[in-house]
Amino acid sequence: MITTLSSKPPIFTSTVIQSDRQSLITFYQQVRQISEQICKPLAIEDYGIQSTADVSPPKWHLAHTTWFFETFLLVAHLPGHQVFHPKFGYLFNSYYEAIGERHPRPQRGLLSRPTVEEVYRYRAYVDEAMRSLLTNLTPQLESLIELGLHHEQQHQELLLTDIKHIFAINPLRPVYQPSLPTQPSSPPQEQWLDYPSGLYAIGHDQPNFAFDNESPRHQVYLQDYWLASRLVTNGEYLEFVQSGGYSQPEHWLAEGWATIQAQQWQAPLYWEQIDGDWWMMTLGGMQQLDADEPVCHVSFYEADAFARWAGKRLPTEAEWEVATAQVPLQGNFLETGRLHPMPAIARTRPDQLFGDVWEWTQSAYLPYPRYQPAAGAVGEYNGKFMCGQMVLRGGSCVTSHSHVRSTYRNFFPPATRWQFSGIRLSA
Amino acid sequence: MITTLSSKPPIFTSTVIQSDRQSLITFYQQVRQISEQICKPLAIEDYGIQSTADVSPPKWHLAHTTWFFETFLLVAHLPGHQVFHPKFGYLFNSYYEAIGERHPRPQRGLLSRPTVEEVYRYRAYVDEAMRSLLTNLTPQLESLIELGLHHEQQHQELLLTDIKHIFAINPLRPVYQPSLPTQPSSPPQEQWLDYPSGLYAIGHDQPNFAFDNESPRHQVYLQDYWLASRLVTNGEYLEFVQSGGYSQPEHWLAEGWATIQAQQWQAPLYWEQIDGDWWMMTLGGMQQLDADEPVCHVSFYEADAFARWAGKRLPTEAEWEVATAQVPLQGNFLETGRLHPMPAIARTRPDQLFGDVWEWTQSAYLPYPRYQPAAGAVGEYNGKFMCGQMVLRGGSCVTSHSHVRSTYRNFFPPATRWQFSGIRLSA
Amino acid sequence: MITTLSSKPPIFTSTVIQSDRQSLITFYQQVRQISEQICKPLAIEDYGIQSTADVSPPKWHLAHTTWFFETFLLVAHLPGHQVFHPKFGYLFNSYYEAIGERHPRPQRGLLSRPTVEEVYRYRAYVDEAMRSLLTNLTPQLESLIELGLHHEQQHQELLLTDIKHIFAINPLRPVYQPSLPTQPSSPPQEQWLDYPSGLYAIGHDQPNFAFDNESPRHQVYLQDYWLASRLVTNGEYLEFVQSGGYSQPEHWLAEGWATIQAQQWQAPLYWEQIDGDWWMMTLGGMQQLDADEPVCHVSFYEADAFARWAGKRLPTEAEWEVATAQVPLQGNFLETGRLHPMPAIARTRPDQLFGDVWEWTQSAYLPYPRYQPAAGAVGEYNGKFMCGQMVLRGGSCVTSHSHVRSTYRNFFPPATRWQFSGIRLSA
Amino acid sequence: MITTLSSKPPIFTSTVIQSDRQSLITFYQQVRQISEQICKPLAIEDYGIQSTADVSPPKWHLAHTTWFFETFLLVAHLPGHQVFHPKFGYLFNSYYEAIGERHPRPQRGLLSRPTVEEVYRYRAYVDEAMRSLLTNLTPQLESLIELGLHHEQQHQELLLTDIKHIFAINPLRPVYQPSLPTQPSSPPQEQWLDYPSGLYAIGHDQPNFAFDNESPRHQVYLQDYWLASRLVTNGEYLEFVQSGGYSQPEHWLAEGWATIQAQQWQAPLYWEQIDGDWWMMTLGGMQQLDADEPVCHVSFYEADAFARWAGKRLPTEAEWEVATAQVPLQGNFLETGRLHPMPAIARTRPDQLFGDVWEWTQSAYLPYPRYQPAAGAVGEYNGKFMCGQMVLRGGSCVTSHSHVRSTYRNFFPPATRWQFSGIRLSA
Repeated sequence: MITTLSSKPPIFTSTVIQSDRQSLITFYQQVRQISEQICKPLAIEDYGIQSTADVSPPKWHLAHTTWFFETFLLVAHLPGHQVFHPKFGYLFNSYYEAIGERHPRPQRGLLSRPTVEEVYRYRAYVDEAMRSLLTNLTPQLESLIELGLHHEQQHQELLLTDIKHIFAINPLRPVYQPSLPTQPSSPPQEQWLDYPSGLYAIGHDQPNFAFDNESPRHQVYLQDYWLASRLVTNGEYLEFVQSGGYSQPEHWLAEGWATIQAQQWQAPLYWEQIDGDWWMMTLGGMQQLDADEPVCHVSFYEADAFARWAGKRLPTEAEWEVATAQVPLQGNFLETGRLHPMPAIARTRPDQLFGDVWEWTQSAYLPYPRYQPAAGAVGEYNGKFMCGQMVLRGGSCVTSHSHVRSTYRNFFPPATRWQFSGIRLSA
Repeated sequence: MITTLSSKPPIFTSTVIQSDRQSLITFYQQVRQISEQICKPLAIEDYGIQSTADVSPPKWHLAHTTWFFETFLLVAHLPGHQVFHPKFGYLFNSYYEAIGERHPRPQRGLLSRPTVEEVYRYRAYVDEAMRSLLTNLTPQLESLIELGLHHEQQHQELLLTDIKHIFAINPLRPVYQPSLPTQPSSPPQEQWLDYPSGLYAIGHDQPNFAFDNESPRHQVYLQDYWLASRLVTNGEYLEFVQSGGYSQPEHWLAEGWATIQAQQWQAPLYWEQIDGDWWMMTLGGMQQLDADEPVCHVSFYEADAFARWAGKRLPTEAEWEVATAQVPLQGNFLETGRLHPMPAIARTRPDQLFGDVWEWTQSAYLPYPRYQPAAGAVGEYNGKFMCGQMVLRGGSCVTSHSHVRSTYRNFFPPATRWQFSGIRLSA
Repeated sequence: MITTLSSKPPIFTSTVIQSDRQSLITFYQQVRQISEQICKPLAIEDYGIQSTADVSPPKWHLAHTTWFFETFLLVAHLPGHQVFHPKFGYLFNSYYEAIGERHPRPQRGLLSRPTVEEVYRYRAYVDEAMRSLLTNLTPQLESLIELGLHHEQQHQELLLTDIKHIFAINPLRPVYQPSLPTQPSSPPQEQWLDYPSGLYAIGHDQPNFAFDNESPRHQVYLQDYWLASRLVTNGEYLEFVQSGGYSQPEHWLAEGWATIQAQQWQAPLYWEQIDGDWWMMTLGGMQQLDADEPVCHVSFYEADAFARWAGKRLPTEAEWEVATAQVPLQGNFLETGRLHPMPAIARTRPDQLFGDVWEWTQSAYLPYPRYQPAAGAVGEYNGKFMCGQMVLRGGSCVTSHSHVRSTYRNFFPPATRWQFSGIRLSA
Repeated sequence: MITTLSSKPPIFTSTVIQSDRQSLITFYQQVRQISEQICKPLAIEDYGIQSTADVSPPKWHLAHTTWFFETFLLVAHLPGHQVFHPKFGYLFNSYYEAIGERHPRPQRGLLSRPTVEEVYRYRAYVDEAMRSLLTNLTPQLESLIELGLHHEQQHQELLLTDIKHIFAINPLRPVYQPSLPTQPSSPPQEQWLDYPSGLYAIGHDQPNFAFDNESPRHQVYLQDYWLASRLVTNGEYLEFVQSGGYSQPEHWLAEGWATIQAQQWQAPLYWEQIDGDWWMMTLGGMQQLDADEPVCHVSFYEADAFARWAGKRLPTEAEWEVATAQVPLQGNFLETGRLHPMPAIARTRPDQLFGDVWEWTQSAYLPYPRYQPAAGAVGEYNGKFMCGQMVLRGGSCVTSHSHVRSTYRNFFPPATRWQFSGIRLSA
């Protein structure tokens, strides 16, 4: 089947994937440190901005991930723990109804206090208390801590995603990281990989960490299908734009058409036409559109319309997972040891099935057969969002390496564009 | 498996299902006549109301279904046909982008003209022209006319659904049909029917009419599952309400919880508590809540929350279809020959799998593998709505008999309540 | 001063102004009858439309004015009166908080019931009961009945204003009255009438009827000022439009500029450019713009911007009243005996100071010194609206003749355009 | 008449009122310095918050006032001036259409860049350039600079008003200035000062600075009236609250009643009931409600409703100005030399007619007879807002001393509450 994939060695040599050799303590320290490293290039002022309802201020991410450990680990399991501040539970609970009242999400950007410095002190205070807890762990706690760390890694991706948005809506177009690694190769020829029909199993059943929504592993019947060997590029998407794709209703779902009319979308988010040339905003600032990079920051509606315009379709999540189950992990992920998040779209190896950009599927985000969320507040982590969202697969250049696996299910509403989301075609 | 179902004969003896014996002309006349019969009890004033964005004025339904024949049959295929009015294309196109500009949907209730009398003249004019066309048909036209008639039958259901809403929001609570047939029997014991795991085929592949979204027939793998032998009753749902179900977030999807907070829902649509007693609005006017009838006018969010509260779940559409594929057609459908639409909820035979109320499934409305919409404007009929909606199965007391089949896929956004929608549990 | 005014005899020979010779009973019958005459050309369907939040369905006007008599006269003062329907108080109270709960104003168009026929029966029932009351009157009741009749006359103006809007938003552009009287003369030369500075008295203190907001009569000091001898014409306003007035912020109040941007106004309401020619919707249907008629259906913002563009200003209400105090009543008002409401803009005698169109002033609608609203619910008639509105003076072609007096204060929010409102310049 | 006023010496000994003895240079330096002093207690994070659409981030105020000098003085009149940053014109223009495009007002809080440090550098850069200009002035430039300084003083008041709001909506309730001066005396007996009817002159005609909206001085005729000798206190307003004032429509203007229903107002802004006790947020943090202080942070609607409940009314602006024309300047204003802004409500000398809180009048904000705004962009300063707003008079504890004069016209929409606005009764 997928025999054409490159055999180059993975470009990341150190990872934060928890292994037998690596204690949970080290993992904890690494993850917590990376969140702060990501924020290093920020000015104090950048920490507080909520540039749109989807975005949370970087300060909020730093505090919320800390609140997760304080609430689910320290308060619940460390006798005598004093909470850092009595109001932080109210301020930094994201959506856990079982925990209690919360500060309204759209008002996260209105809070100058706590200051950035106080948030860092909060982090240090919780890390210090966690050190006690980490020395004497039950398996249940281990698993909760692991969840907390994977949770924080998801917020690391959100940090970079949100920072990009915060900078992009600023007329001064600030730069997050001036020199970004580039890979000047052009994309390989698109190939069509074919997969026979049959019964397949998808879903997680390994000992390593996975979120509850990846389980249970179960059988699905697939008809034979084709998958493109590489992602759709900016150049290919530009053709769609220039051929009038955004003004021809026949390519669009009804909701998608209504959305692009209401939002006056004419191109992917962050694309801008200046004096006839196309530019895009990246974490490295404004750059001219590179036709060879994978297209990014498109909504499901746009991915779906592009596919229909191209005479193809998006894959289902089962088709995607079956196709990638055997593919080695490689790609331009957010590195862990030495941090260098990629540009908006890093120039990338366009033949890989993982990384670079999240890939929209045509699957709605629904529970797997016999899915059971965990008991208690942690059960709200994934399950209650299983309505109105579409599944994305594969991971992006700002995804933590340890999150990239074939069973991982990312999900967003179909109009979402601020994520690093792109397109792989199917047929 | 489903061995417990009653063997009583179907209660409808004449149907409008097109058969070999029945010419398309007769079918055409019957369907067109029923739409007008449904409107008989209306005052002129009732024809023009759009009580909420989902509802269309009865006058609009009568004209739109006529426009469908004029546009897709007469204009396209009857040489020399003069359109009845040059502006009616603009006024009565529902959502066909390929046909051209349309009057905005939320403003359908603002049009006093054309008058009801003019709309009836429009119907007569088109029926007259269709008579010519019907005498000399190609197979392609036959199929288009059949689509137009099934389309009109869908609008017959909408007519009754919308009339109920138009009357329910009126403080005078008018009555559509004073004496409604009742069936005073109490519901049978709930049983749990079990189905083994395995590969099943679902979807339409018979010669009779079906919508494009029911095809292609394809294989699915199902794990073994249980299905309740009857629908959830008002009495059972009232327990959920009275136990505080609407104020306990743990039963609800996040979107569902947000919706009931924002809309201040405390019970199904049309339920009203007056001096401590529960009443419900029906097409027969206000009636005391009957604990034995199937619960109706619940959203997907409420169906899903009820199921979780009850320790069960909703079935998938594949589970539902497999279970019902062999069940004979019977139920309280909208009858055709002599019309007597049922009350809001007709007292019903609660052991049947078809009819009475639409049954929410946990399946998102998505294309079947290799689904292809028809070419041209008619291709917009179903396909472009395959996002953001949930599937309902089975038909209701206001559904045309000829629409009730195991493969039929009804679909609505998850917050929809004005449809005759209820709950069957699964496990 | 105003010596140039025409000496032609008034064109209305019979009026409904209550005089000594005319009993209140006759006045009552005339007024009640005119409301129904106005609705004669309507189809049943036209009675129920609320084409925008400002508009009320004609049916509602007919019922509300009747409710006014039933509530303030019959229920309060006719022993043993049975209300026609227990819910009509809820449905047809406009804004009297002291009377109790009301049906929400924006939902007036959602009510198919009561039917038009029931509303006419309601009118007949109340008229019958009023006959008893009218035979034996105290002065206090006389004054309340007079208020009720002037109130109904205000609604007669609203009926015509609203009917015009209901027809104008309908793509079929129905015609209310096909042949409308025209007066083909062209406007006289504009003259500037000057008034010396000094102390003047304004406000009502005569025995005849006036609303409470016209009192008390009081002194004001005016600087000397000029008033244009005639209204601004369509032709003059068109110059403003064509010179780019709607895209030049310098002419506009900040709120006005924000409004025309948000609403995308480019010309007065009901003006439409078709193939390069300007048309306007009238009660007689679509007509080509007549450059010589007074401009109509402009908001205060537009009136104010036009005046600034013209190097002039709008008069204050005191300036207007002082100037017109001595002018005989004449103009194209809504006639009473034989009804012929004027077209959108009747061709008119453009030298007159009363009638044709309401004239925006630069005065905010505020209480006169020592103004006291009446006690009880009737006190809500005028006083509670004295904020956020601008005063208009003079009356229009759809105003009842008996309402046209120099002290009358009409008032609307500054963005209002569906009224018959125009412009007289001042300096 | 106003013979009861205290003869205590004014409590401010040094002022920034420009006098003959004081050069414009000193005035310039003082004003610019005070803006920065006001921001001294802020954390970097506080500078960027826009807590509601009315509020601007402190950083924005610092930059906008600087932009005013750069645009109207340096760019226009200093040959060879290089603008500090080409985008700052776009970012910091408030509402001058004649200057060009602007960053949307509701998005001022979304800008992390320029940083606070960059804004201070901008201030220094412009101050440096202004030094050149200040050495060689024409009278026209002098007057523009004076306008710029009074403009900046208005923004100093806004800074404190906005900072209070930014802190008040933060659940942590930060403190701007911990120890605030208090004046523990209780309010004097309320007296009613009476003024005879007659012709009076109001408006500015002195050589000292005034805004254009205070001119021309002109005659008005006033009927005799009474004015309360002191402001309404918290204790008096609490009586209104506790007697059910917020749930009795009879006290309220229709718009006011609609506003308190929609906004769910139950008391003045910043009042909070905690365990049965009333507290209020102040610049000194949360404090128990002091019954003797003037009530503050009420809207015009609340001021008007309170007055009606009390059987009184609000004064007109002419009544207010005539009454105060002879009163010496004294009060708890924002001091200039050594800065100590007062608490939310400073405990105050409640017998004075100036200062402490702005006093709502019943006058709409309209042009004085023959008012002419200045030519060019500066003409947009005041004139274009003369619609939809009510006049306040007198100045508050956060108003610059040099702004407090009898002719000064402050104005805000009637629902405004975040200003330091209170109530003086009239009759």
